[in-house]
Formats: sequence, structure tokens, C-alpha cells
Amino acid sequence: MPSFALEGPATCTTYPAGARPHPIVVRRTTYSLSMHDLDPAAALSVVRVRVRFGETDLMGIVHHGSYVSYMEVARIEWLRRRGLTYAEWAAHGVHLPVVELSMRYRAPARFDDEIDVHTSLMEIGAASVRFDYRLVRAADAMLCTEGSTRLACIDARHALQRIAPEVAEILRQPELGG
Amino acid sequence: MPSFALEGPATCTTYPAGARPHPIVVRRTTYSLSMHDLDPAAALSVVRVRVRFGETDLMGIVHHGSYVSYMEVARIEWLRRRGLTYAEWAAHGVHLPVVELSMRYRAPARFDDEIDVHTSLMEIGAASVRFDYRLVRAADAMLCTEGSTRLACIDARHALQRIAPEVAEILRQPELGG
Amino acid sequence: MPSFALEGPATCTTYPAGARPHPIVVRRTTYSLSMHDLDPAAALSVVRVRVRFGETDLMGIVHHGSYVSYMEVARIEWLRRRGLTYAEWAAHGVHLPVVELSMRYRAPARFDDEIDVHTSLMEIGAASVRFDYRLVRAADAMLCTEGSTRLACIDARHALQRIAPEVAEILRQPELGG
Amino acid sequence: MPSFALEGPATCTTYPAGARPHPIVVRRTTYSLSMHDLDPAAALSVVRVRVRFGETDLMGIVHHGSYVSYMEVARIEWLRRRGLTYAEWAAHGVHLPVVELSMRYRAPARFDDEIDVHTSLMEIGAASVRFDYRLVRAADAMLCTEGSTRLACIDARHALQRIAPEVAEILRQPELGG
Repeated sequence: MPSFALEGPATCTTYPAGARPHPIVVRRTTYSLSMHDLDPAAALSVVRVRVRFGETDLMGIVHHGSYVSYMEVARIEWLRRRGLTYAEWAAHGVHLPVVELSMRYRAPARFDDEIDVHTSLMEIGAASVRFDYRLVRAADAMLCTEGSTRLACIDARHALQRIAPEVAEILRQPELGG
Repeated sequence: MPSFALEGPATCTTYPAGARPHPIVVRRTTYSLSMHDLDPAAALSVVRVRVRFGETDLMGIVHHGSYVSYMEVARIEWLRRRGLTYAEWAAHGVHLPVVELSMRYRAPARFDDEIDVHTSLMEIGAASVRFDYRLVRAADAMLCTEGSTRLACIDARHALQRIAPEVAEILRQPELGG
Repeated sequence: MPSFALEGPATCTTYPAGARPHPIVVRRTTYSLSMHDLDPAAALSVVRVRVRFGETDLMGIVHHGSYVSYMEVARIEWLRRRGLTYAEWAAHGVHLPVVELSMRYRAPARFDDEIDVHTSLMEIGAASVRFDYRLVRAADAMLCTEGSTRLACIDARHALQRIAPEVAEILRQPELGG
Repeated sequence: MPSFALEGPATCTTYPAGARPHPIVVRRTTYSLSMHDLDPAAALSVVRVRVRFGETDLMGIVHHGSYVSYMEVARIEWLRRRGLTYAEWAAHGVHLPVVELSMRYRAPARFDDEIDVHTSLMEIGAASVRFDYRLVRAADAMLCTEGSTRLACIDARHALQRIAPEVAEILRQPELGG
């Protein structure tokens, strides 16, 4: 589990300190493990979700906000398949909140579709990780959405936590038994 | 209301046609109105929302997916304040689905916070528009989240619709009575 | 699929007709199949869901609104296991909207818990069905929530549809291959 | 703020104790303030919400789960209008989780509809309160949904808390300045 507080966590300087009781700011560091350090095959998990009725909207398709949920489900499962139970981290006050998120829609998914969320760890930073996602409809391999999230590692007081070497090592592993 | 179908709507060519019954792909065109054609003051509306209990998560703060909802509320209100009722468009089968979305978190918002969503139209494309957002806590002006969405204009069959000149003209106006 | 329109569908008489373009009112009929016509063992399916992070709230437990979603997932899967694909019905404009819902909370579920939704068809009415639910945490058999929903059968114009005998017959069957 | 722990809180006896780390069970007591002790006019607040796009489903109407959210918004506003800020209670670990919920649908609401949630306190129990709701479309006074929720008063360890006399007194008051 991440265990060392970053000295001098990056802070945003454009707002008065009093206005930001718990800023979550992740500086892009130069000493992170970048993509070329990660094995793409080991870094990939495919997690299947099925579209719920209430996740559609009046257009008759999946509401774009629902993809945020699918990506969340997928990365938590990604961690579980490598032996990391996020619920245990949360119980200890360690969290991985989303600090950056982007999505690009390609084609609509529909109610009851099974969606394979291809989830790849792309970067291990000093106090953050980045996952990329490709959401593909299982029935016909149609790409519905692409996305990316950066997650900060923080403690219960919302202070940035350095990702410990032993955690980084686990993150570089393929799925257990895979 | 958008009324002219684009001839030869842009389509993604990297996937077999059969796999994409309703692709939503928006090509960045060169003939769009870009930011320097828009008056920043006229293009801005500030829409207030209050954080609901169910929009928080076990971290005790607003779940990141809730911001997707706040941005949606804000841009629909942005249109209304210029005389465009999105519900009427939807009733006629014209929609503005989100095709690109990005968010960057700055600081956590909490239950019951009032959030001012500063919403600016940034670009009017041939068949899409882009809004940028700054979500600011009303009580202390703390910036919680920044975001951006690109919306495609489509018809009931999910075909791209050119944004009609009269609609583009309305989009360039400030709030009614403002 | 339900195919016969009810003659003289029940309508609510306490509101002016103009105010109710699409009333959904289900009259309790005397000619429905009641519980004693149903085989409790055949009427039961157990559907497992896992609590998503975004389904919790700041109390650190599952938000009560999330149980609505779990019950929905479970009854759609209940139908699927008997050969009825609700998505096909929806594509044909036949729907089973929830017209009554009740829940009673027993104990809190938490993030990442696996919940077994014990779902039983309790009644087949002329134009509605009722399901009861027991949501039980898989790890320790703790009862988290009990619930019940009545679903009306309606067409695309929101007119009540009599449940056809062949559909009622299918509803009385156990899971396929079970 | 509620301040006295109930001696011998009611507990469910049909499940082994080890399986229920945090049971939330509210016994209907005989010593509660019942409806005839409450002034119906004072007990009523009307809170307006507007239907969000993402709160609809593929039927083109408001998803039934969204009403759960509207009732929650309304009762938190009901408290605020009497000087009780639920967010402050939550910050002190005092909560009012929903332990019973029922809804009956009358007619569908649609995207962008303004809904007036008529919210009435119906009962003040020893450690719980009950609110009833009538969700009425503002444009034409159409009744969309009726509902009821019972809320338990608990502390941070999920132990039932007696509702203190001074809180009960506030709950019996009309809206401030009303």
C-alpha cells in the first residue's frame, strides 16, 4: 500500500490557500514509469459489463455519464485481478480519486448490450496512475467509446501519497494466474 | 432548429461498416466559427446547482461522475437563456449528444455545496459545438473542476445535421434580457 | 409478447383528462394469477451484482437509490433466464415500467460487496406483474434490503397491454435448463 | 441535534448476530408523535426540481429511480427551510438514512419538466421520522408520483439515536419566515 507522503506536494498557486482546504493536484513528474516501461500485454485486462435499463436516456442509447461508471468498474476489477482490493485500501483511508478524465464517443451502445472494457495501465507516476480504456460491444466488436483517467493516490486527509515501490511492482504484473 | 443534412457525413474508416450501425463521428472542420469569432462575455452563462446527497461517494466528496451531470444541466440552461429549449429539439428528434468530454479535478466539492457552473460556448462547428466549464464553489470561489464537452448535432436516425445559420446566430447571442 | 390491448383500460378519474396525456394506472383485477398459482421454486432466480464505488454515498454505505438499480438488473436477468429478452420487447415498443415500488432496509451494504438478489415472481395480473426481492450479501448471508415492484405492461403509446396467455405461461416456468 | 442513544435498540432476531454488524432496524413505537399531533399546513413544503436529461431512460420518460433522488432533494430542503442543515448533521456523524421507501407512479414525467415535490412530515417517532411526497408537474398540476420514506436517526457507528425533544420541536414548526 502506498505509504510515503510526498514532500512538497504540488499545489495550485492561482487561488488563495484558504479557498482550497483539500486541493488535489497531480504534477506530471519526470521520474514516473512511462509507457515504454510497461508491458502492454501484462497491462491489459478486459472486463465485461452489461448495460442497465436506467443507464440509457431518452435518445434510446447509453447516457454518456454511464461510461464513467463502466470505466470505474473496470479499473477496480483490473486491480483485483492483480491481487489489489481497492475496498481494502478505502477501508484504510487510501484512495485513488479520478483527477483527470477524457472520453471520446464513437458509436452508441444500447440497453442490454454487453460491453467489453479493454483497460490498460499506461503510466505509473510518483503519486498517480493513468489507465486507458476502449469500450467495445461484445456482440460485434464495435468500438463505442475510448477514454482515459488519471488517478491520484491520496490518504484520508486528501494528502498525496507516493506510490510505494512494492505497489508499483504489483501494478506492473499481469493478471494473477494469467 | 438545425435543418440541413450534411452531404457525406464524416465517417470513421477504421472499422467495418457493418459493425457501426449508427456511428457518431465529428470531423474537425476548417469552416467552423472558432473562438475568436465569439464574444467571451456573450458566450458565458453561470448556472448554479446544489450537490445532492446521492451524488457523493464513500470518500465523503462529490463522485466524479456527478460533474458530468452538472455540466449537462448547465449547458441545457445555457441554451434556454438564449431561447433554445433543448426539450423541444429532442421532441423533434434533434439531439446534441456528447461526443467528447474531458474533466480535470482541482478540489473536492461536498454534499450540499452550491456550485456555480461557468459555462462558455467556445466553438461552433459545422455539425458540432464545444462548451467549456469551470465549476466553482459558490461559498468561497474555490475551483472544483474544469471541463469541456463537444456535442454533435444529429437527427432521430443519428445522422449528423449541419447547424443551420439561424441557429448559429442564436448561439452567438448573449442571454436574453442580459 | 403481450399482444392484446385491454378494452377500457383502467383510468384514474380524480384528475382532469387533459392533465394526464399518458396515465399509467394498473387496476388490481380479480382474474389475475395469484401467488398460490405460482410454484415458489420455479418463480425464483438469484442474480448477483457487485456494489460499484459510485453507488455509495458519504455515509460510506450503498446509497438507497442504488437498490432500485439492483432490483432492475435482477428482474431483467430473471426474464432472460426464461427466454424473454426485455431489450427485444423494448425495441418493439413494449415496456414493463415500474408502477409501484417499496423497499425496506435491514442492514447496510458496502462498496465492492457482492449482493445476491433473490428475485421471485409473486403475481401475474391482467396487465401487470409483481416481483419481490431479497438482497443478501453473498459473503455472510446478511439480509440488506427487501423490496417489491409492480410492473405494468404497456405499448409504445403507453396504453396498457393485456399479458398474453403465452407470455403468462412462460412466466410460470422455471429457469431454462434449471 | 439528536443526542440520546436508545436503550436496547430494536434488533432483528431472525439472522445470526455475527451476520449483522450494523443493523438498521426501526421499531414502530407507540410513544411517537403521530399525524394528528402535526399541523398539516406547517408540515408541508413544496420544493421544485427540473428533470435532467440523464434522468430519463429509453422509454423517453423519467426513470423511476430518479424519483428517489427528487424525494431526497426535497426533504433536505424541507429541513433547511426550518433551520436544520443536514450537511452539518452529517459532518457530526448524525445521519437520517432511508429505512423504508415506497412509491406509486401515476403518470410519466419527461425531460425538462419542472416538478413540484409536495413534501409533508407525517410522523415523528422515537428514532425515526416519516415524510410523504406528491410529485406534481408544475406546468399542468399532473400528479406524477406519490411516495413515502421513513428515515432512521443514527450516529456515526450506525446506532439508533433518539430524536431529542428540541429537534422534535423544530420539526413541528412551519418554514422559517413562512
